[in-house]
Amino acid sequence: MWVVELIQLKVVLLKTELGESRVVMSPSDAQELGAAFESRVKISSLDGKGAIALLSISESEEFIRKGEIGLFQEVAELLGVKEGSIVQVELAKPSRSSATIKKKIFGAKLSKDEIYSLVRDIYEGVVSKVELAAFVTALQFHGADMDEIEYLTRAMAEVGTMLDFGDALIVDKHGIGGVPGASKDALLIVPIVAAAGLMIPKTSTRAILSPSGTVDTMEVLAPIDLSSDEIIEITRRIGGVITWTRSANLSPVDAILIERVEHPLSIDPESLIYASIMSKKYAAGVKRMVLDIPTGPESKVETMKDARRIARNMITLGDRLGIRVEAAISYGGQPIGEFIGPALEAREALTTLITGGKGVGSLVEKAVALAGILLELGGIAPIGEGSNLARDILTSKKAYDKMRQIIEAQGGNPDIKPEDIEVGSYREVVRAPMKGYVTAVSNRAITRIARAAGAPKDKGAGVRVFGKRGDRVEPGDPLLEIYSSSESRLQAALELTRGLEPVKVEGMILEIHREHLIRF
Amino acid sequence: MWVVELIQLKVVLLKTELGESRVVMSPSDAQELGAAFESRVKISSLDGKGAIALLSISESEEFIRKGEIGLFQEVAELLGVKEGSIVQVELAKPSRSSATIKKKIFGAKLSKDEIYSLVRDIYEGVVSKVELAAFVTALQFHGADMDEIEYLTRAMAEVGTMLDFGDALIVDKHGIGGVPGASKDALLIVPIVAAAGLMIPKTSTRAILSPSGTVDTMEVLAPIDLSSDEIIEITRRIGGVITWTRSANLSPVDAILIERVEHPLSIDPESLIYASIMSKKYAAGVKRMVLDIPTGPESKVETMKDARRIARNMITLGDRLGIRVEAAISYGGQPIGEFIGPALEAREALTTLITGGKGVGSLVEKAVALAGILLELGGIAPIGEGSNLARDILTSKKAYDKMRQIIEAQGGNPDIKPEDIEVGSYREVVRAPMKGYVTAVSNRAITRIARAAGAPKDKGAGVRVFGKRGDRVEPGDPLLEIYSSSESRLQAALELTRGLEPVKVEGMILEIHREHLIRF
Repeated sequence: MWVVELIQLKVVLLKTELGESRVVMSPSDAQELGAAFESRVKISSLDGKGAIALLSISESEEFIRKGEIGLFQEVAELLGVKEGSIVQVELAKPSRSSATIKKKIFGAKLSKDEIYSLVRDIYEGVVSKVELAAFVTALQFHGADMDEIEYLTRAMAEVGTMLDFGDALIVDKHGIGGVPGASKDALLIVPIVAAAGLMIPKTSTRAILSPSGTVDTMEVLAPIDLSSDEIIEITRRIGGVITWTRSANLSPVDAILIERVEHPLSIDPESLIYASIMSKKYAAGVKRMVLDIPTGPESKVETMKDARRIARNMITLGDRLGIRVEAAISYGGQPIGEFIGPALEAREALTTLITGGKGVGSLVEKAVALAGILLELGGIAPIGEGSNLARDILTSKKAYDKMRQIIEAQGGNPDIKPEDIEVGSYREVVRAPMKGYVTAVSNRAITRIARAAGAPKDKGAGVRVFGKRGDRVEPGDPLLEIYSSSESRLQAALELTRGLEPVKVEGMILEIHREHLIRF
Repeated sequence: MWVVELIQLKVVLLKTELGESRVVMSPSDAQELGAAFESRVKISSLDGKGAIALLSISESEEFIRKGEIGLFQEVAELLGVKEGSIVQVELAKPSRSSATIKKKIFGAKLSKDEIYSLVRDIYEGVVSKVELAAFVTALQFHGADMDEIEYLTRAMAEVGTMLDFGDALIVDKHGIGGVPGASKDALLIVPIVAAAGLMIPKTSTRAILSPSGTVDTMEVLAPIDLSSDEIIEITRRIGGVITWTRSANLSPVDAILIERVEHPLSIDPESLIYASIMSKKYAAGVKRMVLDIPTGPESKVETMKDARRIARNMITLGDRLGIRVEAAISYGGQPIGEFIGPALEAREALTTLITGGKGVGSLVEKAVALAGILLELGGIAPIGEGSNLARDILTSKKAYDKMRQIIEAQGGNPDIKPEDIEVGSYREVVRAPMKGYVTAVSNRAITRIARAAGAPKDKGAGVRVFGKRGDRVEPGDPLLEIYSSSESRLQAALELTRGLEPVKVEGMILEIHREHLIRF
């Protein structure tokens, strides 16, 4: 019946990331402290550092014995303790963030102060995964107003590293996503814009649900894990980088929310999309940016109405943060370019740079248009002239030269050729079953097939899309080619292809159309 | 770039409960498999058992080395493997439950099949805490209709043990909760009803947010961890038990939802309240039950409108499950009885039994009324006569004799006397600051104070409430006495008392009233 307030325990390091702050105690120590499974405990090192963690209890007195406390990686890092260090453990007071999250579950508006302390708690790992999931689910349902979004954005940025470029006019481009093949456009836009003399430190996250993110694709050409100092130095010296938000610790809470909740649940609340994008731009010191909103069937944004709302909201949020945002609503109803998957897209982008813009129109046109807006925003080109200048830079191969500098600065081989890039050696071509016209290429189906083939983790996996909407095909013409580094994953992707109708071919005559629907 | 489909690894047992199925692999093995932190992996033992788990990756190659896999308790139990066993590991296919949960997040109705397989997955630990939290949070906003609630109830019961009493007419009582002191009424009702010849296997969970649950209180008198066979045997032999749902594996998913999500978030979706209560009754073989709905300020149910809706829904759900439910809406605006906390309530209940019903009116009246309804439902008393019969059984001490049998059957000491029960030795009395009338006793404040004092884990902690609504007090009269086994927790509870105004005393003269509000 007797319970103590504080016990001293010896640290056992459990060198594993769990995704939340958790410690393990023996049953007897837990009982002595009056703590149970999932109790919140406060651990203090002897030099005064503290951490809050959730409690697990070891089975009998094995694994973690009486007198010991097992610290998983998150807690050990916060405390900076070693194996065998002595720590003090007590029951923790309820956290303020628990009340904040409950408030959002019931639909109330959160204050600046509540949001800042919640974001700080998330960063410090004291918000459990259960609370984090409830918060994001509640945002999916109740949303957040512009005040809450602004505070969330600022708090998410300020809890991490803020890049300081002084008075330099930093520009950037961001795409809302949802269209396979879009990861590579930054590999054209960044060198074009940097070659024109602007500074564009393009920072991105890895793919969440897509076959490849900008950094997954860039990583095929060069390391992407630059520190914040390296980003500043390279950007000042050559105008651009294509790097990872993670290694520079930009908006670290964004990655926590995405990895622990949004990705596992595959939900993506609109208020968090805004805060996610803008916290990274705000942290990177961006002053002017173009936001690409690909809109169309099976894109992340499906209607013009949604696209316009997002554009308006992002411009408003940008104004509040001192970032001038221009939003470009682009056609997002089918994949961009011909190749999908990290290595395939890196090869396509590199080929486009080397040939000065020869290649698939949809990719080049989009990159030139977006780069053009940035050149205008950055004062390099008069309004209406940006895309011409961008195209000149691409055609004259100044963009390729700039990309070589960027690859080299990031530690890659600037002489890399498209044919040096290894792609999946297991391949299969999917052909048109009949004569007709391509009436749709499904973003979702292409994404699922590329991911089934192994993208983005298997860098060489992906899909080549031969025909786009409106193209005429003869029976036996190739529609898709699937690449994988694994035979069984290639088979899984092919299996999926049979069920999904990624490329829809429709004929002229109703009967054949109907038969096709059965056979394809 | 090469990725394999299947690897064999050697088991390292990590003898710790995490609250979800999780395994740890080395960075190199994870990379070989194309798996990352939070990937879902399938682990198969050589004798064909399988489990799905989330992946953590050990830091460098320490802790878990190449060739090894660390299994936390949940996974090791499912697989039944030993230290050093060989298991096969592969990437798992996406679970159907992920889609089901996402469907509920977006507000759609779930099918019977989806609910059954979700409940099965939760039981087997393959639904992550993040998914579980999102599901419960979504139920909080979107609710569930009666079909979904019925399937949830049946699935939650059927995944665990179903007690089989054959044709016996099993009765039970359940209280919705929210009123401190209510945990002890079962300690009167069960022996009264059993003494009348009915079978009442009262199964309960531990306190979630209250100062004591029925089993926390019963545990002061006898062990409560009976197996399902013991429950059946004792109930058949002497008519009643007061035991724990957990040890009998009744509706195990209910405990998972409560412990992992509802308690940490302190949310309690109405649809889950229904499923939680009725899955345990359905699993326990109950055929007729009385549902006590304490209603009043700061009770779980605050308005008669809510109470009537809950009554209607529970009766409907009961009909669907073949359980005849009668709902009794009782006054729940202040604590029941005089004592709050496990040992204090056990002592109060035992005193009431021994004295044949002498004691605080609110406790005896409520217990007699609810027991009376059960006697009528069970056909022992004519309608309108149940409470008289119940009172006779209590007054004649037949209820006490029955309770002695129950305590003995459960392994306790039947001769235990109220004064044998140890209560907190640190005590402090809170006195009336002025002359006046008690106008309110706050359920929430009393609950918080009792919990701050250590209840329910500290069995001896709790609160004695001297005055109830309408009582006249003189300055210096005792209002509360706080008990704790810890001096610092007693101080914390007193600190809380100063801020909360748990007992509101109002005078006749406005000036004194105002001064009181400042001083109390």
